[in-house]
Amino acid sequence: MNYNKVNKFILSELINICGEKDVIVDKKRIIDYSHDEYIKPDENTFPELVVKPKTVYEISKIIKLANRNLIPVTVRGGGTGLSGGAVSFCGGILLSMENLKKIVEVDKKNFMATVESGVTLQEFAKELEKHNLFFPPKPGDEYAMIGGMIATNAGGARVVKYGTMRNLVRGLEVVLPDGEIINVGGKLIKNSAGYSLLNLFIGSEGTLGIITKAIISIMSRNVNTLTILVPYDNIDSAIKTVTEILNTKNVPVSIEFLELEPILLTEKLLGKSWPVKVGKAHLMIVIDNKCGECVNEQTEHISEICNNNGALEIFVAENNVKQKEIAEIRSNLYESIKNYVVEILDIAVPPASIGDFVNELHQLEKKYSVWLPTYGHAADGNVHTHYMSGKYFNGEIIPVPENEWRSKRDLVVEEIVKTGISFGGSISGEHGIGVTKINFMRSMYSEKYLDLLKKIKTVFDENNILNPGKMIPSL
Amino acid sequence: MNYNKVNKFILSELINICGEKDVIVDKKRIIDYSHDEYIKPDENTFPELVVKPKTVYEISKIIKLANRNLIPVTVRGGGTGLSGGAVSFCGGILLSMENLKKIVEVDKKNFMATVESGVTLQEFAKELEKHNLFFPPKPGDEYAMIGGMIATNAGGARVVKYGTMRNLVRGLEVVLPDGEIINVGGKLIKNSAGYSLLNLFIGSEGTLGIITKAIISIMSRNVNTLTILVPYDNIDSAIKTVTEILNTKNVPVSIEFLELEPILLTEKLLGKSWPVKVGKAHLMIVIDNKCGECVNEQTEHISEICNNNGALEIFVAENNVKQKEIAEIRSNLYESIKNYVVEILDIAVPPASIGDFVNELHQLEKKYSVWLPTYGHAADGNVHTHYMSGKYFNGEIIPVPENEWRSKRDLVVEEIVKTGISFGGSISGEHGIGVTKINFMRSMYSEKYLDLLKKIKTVFDENNILNPGKMIPSL
Repeated sequence: MNYNKVNKFILSELINICGEKDVIVDKKRIIDYSHDEYIKPDENTFPELVVKPKTVYEISKIIKLANRNLIPVTVRGGGTGLSGGAVSFCGGILLSMENLKKIVEVDKKNFMATVESGVTLQEFAKELEKHNLFFPPKPGDEYAMIGGMIATNAGGARVVKYGTMRNLVRGLEVVLPDGEIINVGGKLIKNSAGYSLLNLFIGSEGTLGIITKAIISIMSRNVNTLTILVPYDNIDSAIKTVTEILNTKNVPVSIEFLELEPILLTEKLLGKSWPVKVGKAHLMIVIDNKCGECVNEQTEHISEICNNNGALEIFVAENNVKQKEIAEIRSNLYESIKNYVVEILDIAVPPASIGDFVNELHQLEKKYSVWLPTYGHAADGNVHTHYMSGKYFNGEIIPVPENEWRSKRDLVVEEIVKTGISFGGSISGEHGIGVTKINFMRSMYSEKYLDLLKKIKTVFDENNILNPGKMIPSL
Repeated sequence: MNYNKVNKFILSELINICGEKDVIVDKKRIIDYSHDEYIKPDENTFPELVVKPKTVYEISKIIKLANRNLIPVTVRGGGTGLSGGAVSFCGGILLSMENLKKIVEVDKKNFMATVESGVTLQEFAKELEKHNLFFPPKPGDEYAMIGGMIATNAGGARVVKYGTMRNLVRGLEVVLPDGEIINVGGKLIKNSAGYSLLNLFIGSEGTLGIITKAIISIMSRNVNTLTILVPYDNIDSAIKTVTEILNTKNVPVSIEFLELEPILLTEKLLGKSWPVKVGKAHLMIVIDNKCGECVNEQTEHISEICNNNGALEIFVAENNVKQKEIAEIRSNLYESIKNYVVEILDIAVPPASIGDFVNELHQLEKKYSVWLPTYGHAADGNVHTHYMSGKYFNGEIIPVPENEWRSKRDLVVEEIVKTGISFGGSISGEHGIGVTKINFMRSMYSEKYLDLLKKIKTVFDENNILNPGKMIPSL
């Protein structure tokens, strides 16, 4: 596809639509929009300009203009992604959703809220708290915007009990490439009327249409929470515990798997203490309930299962301060290794295979003499594995010579991906494909499968102006 | 589209593929395949022949043959549908899945089972019982097949707690119109790699590909169950109760809404007794739990809510025999009115609007002097409304003169549909569109929306051989 550049005429049209204040052409200001939490800004990541529309109608006009003039449009939420999905790699218009910030309605009777795409998770949580309500997904960054979370089908730790975005999104308002505004789904629990366009837009990473508004399920808050830390001397015992816990009557909110090295680095980074020092493989189990007694009963039951499976100890954090400290360390694991992260993978395998998968990762570490810190959502089979330009040694990361980590990079990452796929896994459990995983799509899917994705893309966006170069290889 | 007829050559090819035994050409035997639970057999509902393949490879060959020769293929599961989706209205090949009956695997570690499409709900439940496991969807007919349930995104009463098919299907094996076999999804809880073809096939009613095998979530059985019947003298109080119950810490398995007249007819049909005779609007609430104590606690809490909202009485069925009798009456409501049913609707509205919706239906009953028996899944906002060729009088159905019910039919049904849509509802909550609701698609969706559905259909099935005349108007 040959795209056009934004010329003076188009720029003045955009200013007509959004107002001068909301069209950014200054490179120094554009830099904020030229990266995400993984991709760093460089000469390839700058859009030609940034627009910040305030309404769906402005967006409709922008898209129509871009489509008519063959100008790429990259939509951006909070920019908290890890796969470059919201970064423009082919110039054009970057469409920031930051001004679509209305929480239109909190419907307590239907347990659903209607929110614009630019509302951050933090803002939404704050509003819901007023009503003693709760929206479970927790992708690790409170500045993630609802639209971006839908576009990547985000998940996070609480999926065990509450599901991914896909399970919670009920309806969407979407601007199509021709500028038409459509609504899919609604305040509905059941809907069997035609193909689910709703579920097609969820996880479409800004390639089919611009999600401007969403109806999402919310729930009443479980006020009693508790965090349990359980160390094991091997991964297999930890994972066996997970399977047995999932078979109990109340599943926990989350069951996270962690290994000691990133924990020690994060303790140091934050100056905080993880209460458990023994064992290589740790489980962090969070439970919640409206009834305090039930929390105690559940804790007892889970402890019993942990003990039967060789737990080295069981640490129960009941008070809020301690729970928060543990959660903070868990949330900052990535921060503690970030400077040395070369690639981030978020492979999802069948939950019961997570132990074998992590064991194979450790085999790869030995085989290639690399460090692959891995942690994440054990009960969903979804862990985060990092290819590093450093190695862990005695509470620190020691840099590896650049030629060494560069020479092994593709080999090791490919082996990790193939290993995940060999377990029947997905190359992305929650981050989306973006640009960083686009080349692995061919490892996961057949030509036929990819061809169907391409054709579906064309149904919606025949000029391929929406987020080109993302998700589907060679489009 | 001009289709071809099945000629001698194609017949002999089909016999080559499936064996003579599994190709039916005898009209007397085809009659069993020429109807569903709503559509009655007539000269328009007969396929030219029925094939009963035993493997996915046979299906692939059949589809390829049909596609090459432009012969329509209608796929059929248990034939328990209510919208004609599995009935052939344009001749061609009827592809019965009844021989794909393998329960391939019950994976207790991942809480997932792999089953072929022709497995009935009854067979599946029986197998799972051996492992003390459980598959919640309950579409009202135990002979429904897994493939058909996926193809219509079936639900039933237990959606409140356990979700619809869409929430439980993890992976599919599908034969595409060109004969290619693809796998979508897998034993995965999280997957953000590309558009969700999985969710596109779910609810596609045999129009995009033939679903041959599925990976579905299963769960451990909650052994303690209990049924509560609560009569009210008006719908609004009943529905207010539902909203409040959904706000409690453990949601019930199901909250069904029933009105007295169909109950009385079913009592008579079965010779069984519904324990509650007062009040016009009844709630039937089923709860389950692994812990008996919790069931009692939950019952107490629910009873309190019911009393606060004007319950006329509260009947609790603890023993299995009584629970089964109540469930049997609920399951046979349709049987008791079936002979007079002209149209069945399964509109879903936002759950909190269900009371207002049912009240409007009663207004329509008065306005047109018709009887519109309505009952169903209150907590999901999904009720079944029937346009009848009879009226209820004193424990019986009295026939209405044919010219009378015929003359009002379209008018009343259209008003019901429009009323549902005016609440933000869907024209089908769980039965699918098939042929019976195809004309309402234009009331629910814009031309643009329908155009997207058509184009998606074409991506998969450019010759429109799969289940033509279904779901999407004027295709």
